[in-house]
This record gives sequence, structure tokens and C-alpha cells, in this order.
Amino acid sequence: MAIVNGYKQNENENSLDILNLDQLEKQAKEIIPTGGFGYISGGSEDEWTLRANRQAFTHKQIVPRALTNIEKPELDTNVFGLPLKTPVFMVPAAAQGLAHVKGEVDTAKGVAAVGGLMAQSTYSSTSIADTAAAGNGAPQFFQLYMSDDWDFNEALLDEAKAAGVKGIILTVDATVDGYREADIINNFQFPIPMANLTKYSEGDGQGKGIAEIYASAAQKIGPDDIARIADYTDLPVIVKGIESPEDALYAIGAGAAGIYVSNHGGRQLNGGPASFDVLEDVAKAVNGKVPIIFDSGVRRGSDVFKALASGADLVGIGRPVIYGLALGGAEGVQSVFEHLDHELEIIMQLAGTKTIEDVKKAKLLNLHY
Amino acid sequence: MAIVNGYKQNENENSLDILNLDQLEKQAKEIIPTGGFGYISGGSEDEWTLRANRQAFTHKQIVPRALTNIEKPELDTNVFGLPLKTPVFMVPAAAQGLAHVKGEVDTAKGVAAVGGLMAQSTYSSTSIADTAAAGNGAPQFFQLYMSDDWDFNEALLDEAKAAGVKGIILTVDATVDGYREADIINNFQFPIPMANLTKYSEGDGQGKGIAEIYASAAQKIGPDDIARIADYTDLPVIVKGIESPEDALYAIGAGAAGIYVSNHGGRQLNGGPASFDVLEDVAKAVNGKVPIIFDSGVRRGSDVFKALASGADLVGIGRPVIYGLALGGAEGVQSVFEHLDHELEIIMQLAGTKTIEDVKKAKLLNLHY
Amino acid sequence: MAIVNGYKQNENENSLDILNLDQLEKQAKEIIPTGGFGYISGGSEDEWTLRANRQAFTHKQIVPRALTNIEKPELDTNVFGLPLKTPVFMVPAAAQGLAHVKGEVDTAKGVAAVGGLMAQSTYSSTSIADTAAAGNGAPQFFQLYMSDDWDFNEALLDEAKAAGVKGIILTVDATVDGYREADIINNFQFPIPMANLTKYSEGDGQGKGIAEIYASAAQKIGPDDIARIADYTDLPVIVKGIESPEDALYAIGAGAAGIYVSNHGGRQLNGGPASFDVLEDVAKAVNGKVPIIFDSGVRRGSDVFKALASGADLVGIGRPVIYGLALGGAEGVQSVFEHLDHELEIIMQLAGTKTIEDVKKAKLLNLHY
Amino acid sequence: MAIVNGYKQNENENSLDILNLDQLEKQAKEIIPTGGFGYISGGSEDEWTLRANRQAFTHKQIVPRALTNIEKPELDTNVFGLPLKTPVFMVPAAAQGLAHVKGEVDTAKGVAAVGGLMAQSTYSSTSIADTAAAGNGAPQFFQLYMSDDWDFNEALLDEAKAAGVKGIILTVDATVDGYREADIINNFQFPIPMANLTKYSEGDGQGKGIAEIYASAAQKIGPDDIARIADYTDLPVIVKGIESPEDALYAIGAGAAGIYVSNHGGRQLNGGPASFDVLEDVAKAVNGKVPIIFDSGVRRGSDVFKALASGADLVGIGRPVIYGLALGGAEGVQSVFEHLDHELEIIMQLAGTKTIEDVKKAKLLNLHY
Repeated sequence: MAIVNGYKQNENENSLDILNLDQLEKQAKEIIPTGGFGYISGGSEDEWTLRANRQAFTHKQIVPRALTNIEKPELDTNVFGLPLKTPVFMVPAAAQGLAHVKGEVDTAKGVAAVGGLMAQSTYSSTSIADTAAAGNGAPQFFQLYMSDDWDFNEALLDEAKAAGVKGIILTVDATVDGYREADIINNFQFPIPMANLTKYSEGDGQGKGIAEIYASAAQKIGPDDIARIADYTDLPVIVKGIESPEDALYAIGAGAAGIYVSNHGGRQLNGGPASFDVLEDVAKAVNGKVPIIFDSGVRRGSDVFKALASGADLVGIGRPVIYGLALGGAEGVQSVFEHLDHELEIIMQLAGTKTIEDVKKAKLLNLHY
Repeated sequence: MAIVNGYKQNENENSLDILNLDQLEKQAKEIIPTGGFGYISGGSEDEWTLRANRQAFTHKQIVPRALTNIEKPELDTNVFGLPLKTPVFMVPAAAQGLAHVKGEVDTAKGVAAVGGLMAQSTYSSTSIADTAAAGNGAPQFFQLYMSDDWDFNEALLDEAKAAGVKGIILTVDATVDGYREADIINNFQFPIPMANLTKYSEGDGQGKGIAEIYASAAQKIGPDDIARIADYTDLPVIVKGIESPEDALYAIGAGAAGIYVSNHGGRQLNGGPASFDVLEDVAKAVNGKVPIIFDSGVRRGSDVFKALASGADLVGIGRPVIYGLALGGAEGVQSVFEHLDHELEIIMQLAGTKTIEDVKKAKLLNLHY
Repeated sequence: MAIVNGYKQNENENSLDILNLDQLEKQAKEIIPTGGFGYISGGSEDEWTLRANRQAFTHKQIVPRALTNIEKPELDTNVFGLPLKTPVFMVPAAAQGLAHVKGEVDTAKGVAAVGGLMAQSTYSSTSIADTAAAGNGAPQFFQLYMSDDWDFNEALLDEAKAAGVKGIILTVDATVDGYREADIINNFQFPIPMANLTKYSEGDGQGKGIAEIYASAAQKIGPDDIARIADYTDLPVIVKGIESPEDALYAIGAGAAGIYVSNHGGRQLNGGPASFDVLEDVAKAVNGKVPIIFDSGVRRGSDVFKALASGADLVGIGRPVIYGLALGGAEGVQSVFEHLDHELEIIMQLAGTKTIEDVKKAKLLNLHY
Repeated sequence: MAIVNGYKQNENENSLDILNLDQLEKQAKEIIPTGGFGYISGGSEDEWTLRANRQAFTHKQIVPRALTNIEKPELDTNVFGLPLKTPVFMVPAAAQGLAHVKGEVDTAKGVAAVGGLMAQSTYSSTSIADTAAAGNGAPQFFQLYMSDDWDFNEALLDEAKAAGVKGIILTVDATVDGYREADIINNFQFPIPMANLTKYSEGDGQGKGIAEIYASAAQKIGPDDIARIADYTDLPVIVKGIESPEDALYAIGAGAAGIYVSNHGGRQLNGGPASFDVLEDVAKAVNGKVPIIFDSGVRRGSDVFKALASGADLVGIGRPVIYGLALGGAEGVQSVFEHLDHELEIIMQLAGTKTIEDVKKAKLLNLHY
């Protein structure tokens, strides 16, 4: 176990025997230091939205289908012109060095092993180039926490482009840090430097709390920023943190090449809706104009199915991957995706859907629970 | 207590003093080995659908009726031309040797004693002929887990027909095993052979998990299979695992002589609706074209009443019967049916319904709880 | 403490310091023998309807009213031509000797002390004449569990009329005993004779279970029975156990002079609706043709208010009175009514309703909880 | 720690490190004597309405907004012509000497420090003049529990006017004390005199329960009283305790210059609706004719946002301020407001609302939870 600034980083490198992703959280809690675990697992305020993210999946039900003559469901899909072996992708999540000494490099390896997509965070523990290299040709996105300092933004975008990322995710729901009580209770400050901050800005994030780090990012983000980033990079810009049909259309009008429905895993605006509860309405408004990416609360194959059937083209998981990273490094990450894919395959077969396109066309029930 | 391959089989033969079927589960848990109990009682994933199966019955309420001038309610009914003394029947449930050394033979005896209907499972511990003989003339159905190997299918259908079964239940909701966590936790493998597999296929199921066994069955099941089985046997084919009006009509169009609404007791597609929640809509679509069989979550006389009043012609129970089998053999099974019939009679009297036909016409309330 | 057939009867005679009626149940449980307490407090099957009776009151809310210029709310009311000092009445409840050695005699004294109405049960521990005499001129009803033996019925009706009762309550929701598990668990048999059975029938109920006793009553009750009782007694006949608009109109058509909405305190048809949930619809159908009496689940002044505002003319309580009887005899009963009246007065003042007629006209909200 | 009549008054004077207002209650419970804490924290009857006040906020959700180009949200607002630095105000709450030896004087200081509005209660521990002086020029309202004795009323109104208060709050929902069980359990009587009663009436409240004190106030309050107070004081009269559109319009017709939507924090009519549940309908009826003040159940910045977006112009907190007072005196009170303002600022930024006017125009979702 590596110790950096008094913080113990896990060094496990092994595949995992996974019962389900909820169990994984319990196991990871044992080995990730309290401050890091609180940062990873926590939500904002009293975590109502965090809990609602899970509960919302019970608001719709999957219809088991009979006599469909299908077998061997296939998880391949193609989004943004990228051929993927699974519709489940790794969300952009900060500071994965909190879970494992190899951080995002191991995550990238694990995701690549299953043929999935990974999004790097601005606040990654490892550098854009290193993480991209670990992906070994597998597609990656780069997520930008936009700064008021465009030199910083451009430096990151330059490096991302050089590293071959396929799209830029612009996060717009974190213009200030949500009120995250776990971080306050733990008086949590990042013990581990953030590679992009080390390289391109004055501080490296180390010894700062997440609220301070967000405070150094731009609060003002507007439609022009989408065009500016798209023009600068010539890459599709996906806007992350959309929770309403109006904002989805507004973003597309401003040049968004993709809409990312998310409430940041319940870490930002507590008292806002569960992401799954708004997905269908957003998708109806978007109406196929651009792809839709979704995250927040996904833990089961049935959740992935429900999100796809409600309009998502890709479905992201974050915390479970980081737990898998802590418990098993790159192989652990791979196990997490394989497990969720396995649950999804079973659901697909029982719901009579052979392909991800079939899943997207499946009708869900809406019986209130 | 018999011990087979290290698995202790109960040998009780006695009637039971039953308070209610929920209590029965607690008692049975004491005497059925952990692996067997987990297999029998468990559902898939986080068991949301399993729990919803029970909760759904609170979504409708029975109207107590006054001044009806009725007395002595009668439970006789006639479905598929079969005169039955109770609308409650024994569902096809695999491997009842896990509960009792006599397995399905004792179950058949108990069901026959109350004048009910029993369905044999393909994965029975005892042979079709033995189970049928134990029924002693009482009507039985044979449930088919269809194999890709039609020699196997035909051998079973031949034997079933020879044994005098009155209908074939074709299960279509188990083309792959649901993700059943109890079996994984217990690393459960069948310790006891399955008679039909022993006789007609290479392996006998022993030492395999249920996922493996399902994997050797057909994943692809389509409408043509209904006709093929009906033609081959000249028996009514009832399609089991229907959960939508669309599929019910599709199955009838393909030749189904009965529709079996069930979600496999919450063991297959978790995240799907409670069976009781979809029953009424399926029944409206079927509109009397063929009889409707129902199971999933039934534990009370009031549940049986609600299912009948929502469109079912027969209402099945499974786990409670197996618990009764474990605790008392054939007499235990008989006690379970007698108890549920007793609860049903009380409800019928208080709801002013003298016959099962009256129950089917009763209007339920739909006050959300 | 008196001991009859091994059953300890309380002999307390004192007023009670009541916090609320829920507390009272806990206190009474300490002093009423287990079998008696189970019989009094229990419901049928898994007690879903019993619990729903309480929860249903949260389905409607009382609007606090402002600037009403009222003070000193008045609880007087007049139903069936009877002037009453409170709209809260004592329901017909069997075998109150289980709670107190004086039984219904003490209950009648307590109810008379508050100027309320009491209904005697056929299965009373004390005789019609004794209970009536204890009422000392306060109005009483007599409740009939109709027998197939009309000599028995007429003997009771004769005595009731001679004792000066003001109306007959014909119970129609107990043509068979609900499946009451507490009584089965306790193997409960009445240790104390029932005065009316002692006097007029072969057995006196002693040593029998409630299911047996009901079994000796008539199962068949029809509309003609209303007319027969009304003709014989020349008293208003109130039909108890109505839970639907249809049955209310049917009963009125058959001669009912009052409708008694009740589900027998959740003791009969479990799986039926909460009584409060159906009250408003019944009242709309009755539309003032005859008075409406209500019970089932009332524990608070706000419950009484909600029932009155939903169409009830009188609101009954049963179990709490019996608990008060056990704890304090006649004075205890008086304390229970005084406490509930006190809660009701507060609610009336805050809801801007000076009289019971004002309460009946108050509009409730219907926000789902 | 000061001891008055055996009651220990806190004397803390320090700022507080607040995690959230729920935690604050737990901390305050440790240091406020049982009787005082029960009086402050308790509700009426079984506290259903008290709990519903909190739960109601989950009935609406705040939409996170994207690409809004805003930063640095501003909490300034102007209501009744009063410029305020925060839309959160201190409700009129009785007897704050129960929490702290300085009582309302310290509360006034704390509120003034954040530029907020404070309302004094008739039943304050400190005098109108002293509390006003402590406010040091910050705006205050005076709340009147109207007496039948108009000499008393006029004396208080004279003093309030002399002290420079900007409006009179006439409480109309407390014409009798709610049935508050905590006070009964604790046999709570005010150990500390109420300054206004000491000065202007016979008793000073000391040694009395709240029910007695209310009993000495007027039960009859009508529309004429509004005009009488307005005429006498020439100040805006705000009617407190409105919970329906009808009463809001009625009060405005009678001369109310403001509507105060509140259920007295669940302390009066239990079984009535949560205040937040009725706010939107009241606001639609009021339709901007006069300002709307709201309280009952507010604990989070997101609650304040939701109330403003549902029609409130000012949002009050009471119990949390008193807890802050107990724990830290004037500085503690200041900490409470600063904390809630901080939570509100975060929510405003994430919801894309730069000003309080923007918040009022924000659309909430209404997904049932």
C-alpha cells in the first residue's frame, strides 16, 4: 500500500468476484481511506437527490417479452461514430488516485479491455497523455471544467486533442460546488496532486477542498463557450449536466453535438429531480437530433436497460468503477464492466431484445411505486 | 432424514397446523438446507419484482358486500373442461426433492386430495409417470422447458401424454436464468438428480447450477413452437410467462389454448412489473378467448380472490406448497391448500360471492396504497 | 381483581389522565389478559385493512380557517331525533367483560355521563335490561347478530324494546368470522358468559371461540330481514357494515333508516378498503336520505372531524373505550370520551367551525400522502 | 449558566460551525432544559402535520439550469418597501428566554447582523423596546396575539409603533392552543416571565402553560380586527396563519397588507396540510395583490428556493434560529442565517438564478415522491 502525504493508496491488481455493485461499495469502503471514500460516495445536502437517483428506476418497469425467437443478445453499439462493445461507459470522475495508486491509467486499461468508452476528468490524478496511452487505442472523451483562464483551457484541449480523444465533455452543472457534507465532516482536502493542475496551473489541487478547486473554475458558462470549444478543437462538444428539455434544445442550438443528462450523481443541486425521472422528457425534446449520454444512479443491468429504453444512447457508471479500481486496479475495473454487461445481457434476453437498438425501442411500463 | 450427496432431505409425513403461509416459510427455512432454501425462496437481482409481487395486491381492494342472502360459498370451478374443487393450483416448480425425499410424488398426492390441479415441471425430481400415478386420476399439466433437441422434447411429451396429462405448459420467460444472487452466494448446485434429465438427456442436472441447466435449454422460442407442440401432442398448450396484453394476443394467435400470466415468482426479469399489476390489462385483451392462469406472490385467500376478480381462471401457488411438502409431505401439501381454501371461503362469504363465477364478476376498488 | 374461569377481570373504578388514545392501548395491554386483549385489539389476516383504517385519515387534510369570528365550539348534535352532547358514540362491541368485571354496565354509565349514545352488542357480557338501566335514560341502540332462529331474534328485540332502545343496528358484515390470527394464536375461547346467549339460547358463548359463535348466527342476511325487524320493533333499523355506495342505496331501498359505514374495525374482510376511504362516496350516494354512522380507526379529534366532514352524522369508537373501561371502569370510559371531545373542540375552533353542522359542511383537502 | 426559577438559561456568545440545521437541533437538545426544548420543538397531536411540513418539500424539485452565464448570486430583496440582504427572516416565536438568557435581544442582534428582518412575538421574553433597540435600525415586525382587552392591544401597538416596527403581524391560527403533547408530558409551565405580559397585563405568563396563556387571548378574531389594527397603527397588517386561497382573498378584502402562509410549524391544527403543499395555490389566488410571507418546515437552502419559486416573497425560520440562539447567542443566530444563506447561494447558482426575482420566476417540477 502506497502512502502519499499520509493518504494510503491501494495497489491491488486482480480481477474481482462480483455479486453486485452494491456489495462492491461495501467492500471498497473497507479499503479506501475515510476522506477519499466520503468524497467519492457522498452527495450534497441531505442526499435526497442521491437517493432519488436510485429510487427513480423503480418508476418504470421492463416488460418481459415472450416468443421472440431471439438468443445471444449483442451489446455492440455505435455512438458518435465510435464502435463500442458495450453501451456502458466510464463517466468523467475526478481524482481516481484516491482509490488506487495507478488512478485513471488503470481505469483506462480496464475500460479498454471491455471495449468501452472512457471519459477523462479535468481533475484526473494522471495526465491526459498517460491516461490516453493506457487506453491503448480505445476511444476516450475529455471532460473540461472550464476555467476563466483560457490559456489553461486551451492547454488542456491541446493536450487532449494531441492524445486523440474523440470528443469534449463540457460540464455545466458544477459552476459552484454542491454542498457536500461528507467532505465538510471529514475536512477533506485532496492529498494527491491533480496532473492537469500540476502541469498547467499554479496550484495542483493538493491540499485543497473540492469547493476551493471549483471556485477556481469558471462560474459563468454560456452558450458561446460551446462554439468556442468546438471551433478550437474541431471535436464534438457534449454538454454535461442537462436536466430539462428546454436546456437540451438550448444547448443543441448553441452547437452541442451531444446531450449528457446527469445530476452529477446527486453531488450538485440537491432537491433537484432524479436524472432518470427527467431522461424521457429530455429525449423526446432532443428527438434524435444528437446522441444522449446518461448517468446518475446506475447500478444494475436493468437500470442500463431502462435508461436506454428511455432515450439514452450511452449509460455511464462512476462510483462502482472507482470501487472496482480500488479493489482490483485495471482488472477490477474490467470485472465491474463485465459484471454489469452480464446482468444487462440477461435482461436483454428476457426482454426479447437482441440488440442495443432493440432495447432503445422497447416500451417500459409506468406503474407508480 | 435422508442424505443424498451430502444434502439432507426431509421425510416428514403429517398434516400441518397452519396459521398462515408467511409463517410456513419461516418454519420451512429451519428444515430445508441453506442451498435448497435459497434456490426455492430467492428471486433475481435485488428482488424488487419479488417484493412488488406481494405489494401489488394492496393496489386493489375487495368490496365487502351486504344483504346478499348468500351462504356456504363453493370453490368448485371448471377450467379447460376439467372439474376442480378449488381454483388454486400447484404451479410447475423444479426439483421438489430439495424439500422432501418424496418430491413431486408427495406433492401430487396432496394436491389430488383437495381436488386441485397440479403442474409437473420438466426439472422434477421424480418422473412424469411416477408423479402422474401419485395423482391417482386427478388432473395434471406437464410443463416443458423446451430444448433445442427435439428428440428430448418429444420423449418428454410422449411420456406426459402416456401419463394422461391434460395440457402442456410451455414456459417462455426463462430462456436464460435470471440473475439469482442467493444461488451465487450459496454456490448452489443441484445435489439431487432430475428424473427427466436422467432418463432422456446426457446429464441429470445433478451437480449443476440452475443457470447451467437453463443454458442447455432452448434460448430461442417462437410462435411456431406452440403449434409444433400442439400438433405433436394434440393437447392444449398454455404459454407461461406472459406479462403484456400484446404478447397474450400474439400467443393466442399462434395457437395458445391458455395464457399463463406470471413473472416466475420474481426469479427471472427483475425490474419487470408485479404480475398482479398487469393481470387486469392482459385479461381485458384476452377477453375470454382462452382461459387465464395466474401466479406470482399469492399467499392469502384475499390474493386469490383479487386475482380471480382481475381476470384469472386459476390461481397458482408454488413456494408455500414446497414449504408444506418439506414440513409434512403429502399431508403437508394438502394442509396448505386446505388452509388457503379456508381463507378464500371466508373472503368469498364476506364479499357476497357464492361461486367462483361470482368472484370473477366482482368489482375491486383501486385506491392507491 | 376478579377471576372467572381463570380469567382475571379488572375492577378499576377511577378517572384517567389521558395523553392520547394510542397511549391508552399500551396501558390497557398491561392489564387485560392476553387472550382478551388479542380478541379486542386484533384484526383479520395480516391486518392490512386494520392498518389502512388509520392511514386513510392522512388522505385528507383539514383546512385551518382564519378570521372566522367564532369561539367556544359546541359539540351538541341531533341524530335520529336524539339530542346528543357529542357526535362521538360507543360502537356495539362484544364481551366487554373481558376488559372489566362490570362490562357494558360500566360502559353505559360512562357514555351516559358525557351525554353520548351507546350501542349494545348481541354478544354483551351484561343483559340488555341491565345495560339499559345503567344508561339511566341516555339513548341506546341495540345491535343484532341475527340468528336463523327467529324466536331468539324476537326475544332479544322484545327485551331491547322493553328496555327503551331507540334503534336497532343490524350487522351484515359478519356472516362468517374474519380470519383473526390473534385468536388462533391464543386459542381464545370466551371465558365469560354472554348474557343474551345465557338467557335465550342453548349455549352462553362461554368456552367457545368467536368463529363458533358467529357460525351459530345466520349467514344468510338479505333485504327482507330489514323490513322484518323494522315491522316487528317499529324502531329505525340501521344497517352496519356498508362499504359501498351501491349497498347503501340497496339497504335504504330495503327499508334501512340509517347506514353504518364500517369494516368492523378491520376484523372481517381483510384486503377490503379502509372505511374512511369509502365514506365520502357512500355519503354522496346516500345524499341525506338517512343518517350515516361511521366507525373504524378513529383515535383523534381530527379523525372525528374528518369523518363528519366526509359525510358521517355520528362517529364511533370502540377499542379505546374498552381500554378506558379496563383501566377505569365507568369513569375511565367517561375520561375517554371527554378526552376525544377535548381534541375535537380544539380542531373545531382552529378549523373555524362552531357547530357540528359547520363541521359537516367543511371542505377537506385531498393531497396524497 | 443562569438559573431562573429553577430553569437553566444558556449564556453562550459565540459563532457556530454549522453542518446543517438538522444537526443544530440535536446539539441544542443537549443544552436546552427538557421542558423548554419540548415547547420549542414539539408539534400538536401525533405531529403528522409537523412531519408533513418537511416531507412536502420533496413534492417539488428544482431544475438545475445550464449555460446560464450567471455567477455570484445575490440575495438582496425588497419586501414591504424594506430593503433586505436576505429573503430569510426570523419568524415571531415566543419566549426565547427559554433558549438563552438574552432572549430576543440577542436574536435581534444576530438577525440585524445579516441584514434580515425579525418579527417580535407578543409573548417575547424581552420587551418590544429592548428588542427593537437591539436590532439597531434593522427592520422589525411586531406580531400580535390579540386580546379581548383592547387596552392591552393598544398598549402593545403603541409601544411597537414607538419602537419603529414596520408592520404588524396578526396571528389568526392560534385562537386556541393546539393539542401539544410534549407540553403535557413535561407538564410545562413558562418559568420565565414574558415582558409584555409583565408590563401590560395582570399575569406575566410565568408559571402558566401555553394553553392557559392562549386562553387569555381572544378566541374570536374576524375581518374587522384587521381594519381596527391598521387604522390604529397606520402600519401594514399581515395576517399570519392563512392556509387556503379563499382565506387569503378574504383577508386581503378585509384590509390585509400581506398574507402569511403558515401552519404555526405544525403546532396548531394537526391533520391540516403541510404549508408548502398549499403555498402555490394561495399565491395563485393572491396573484401579486400583496406580498406573501411563508414559514413551516424550512431547514435547507433548497427549501427556501422552493418556497420562493412557489410564490413566497419572504421565507421564515424559527426553531433553527432559537437553537442557534441557545448555542451561541447573537453570534449563533447570525451563524444560522449565514449558513442558510450559503446553502441558498449554492442552489441559486446551480439553478441559474442570479437574483431573488429570478428565483421567484423559476419553474419547479412536480414529480411525486
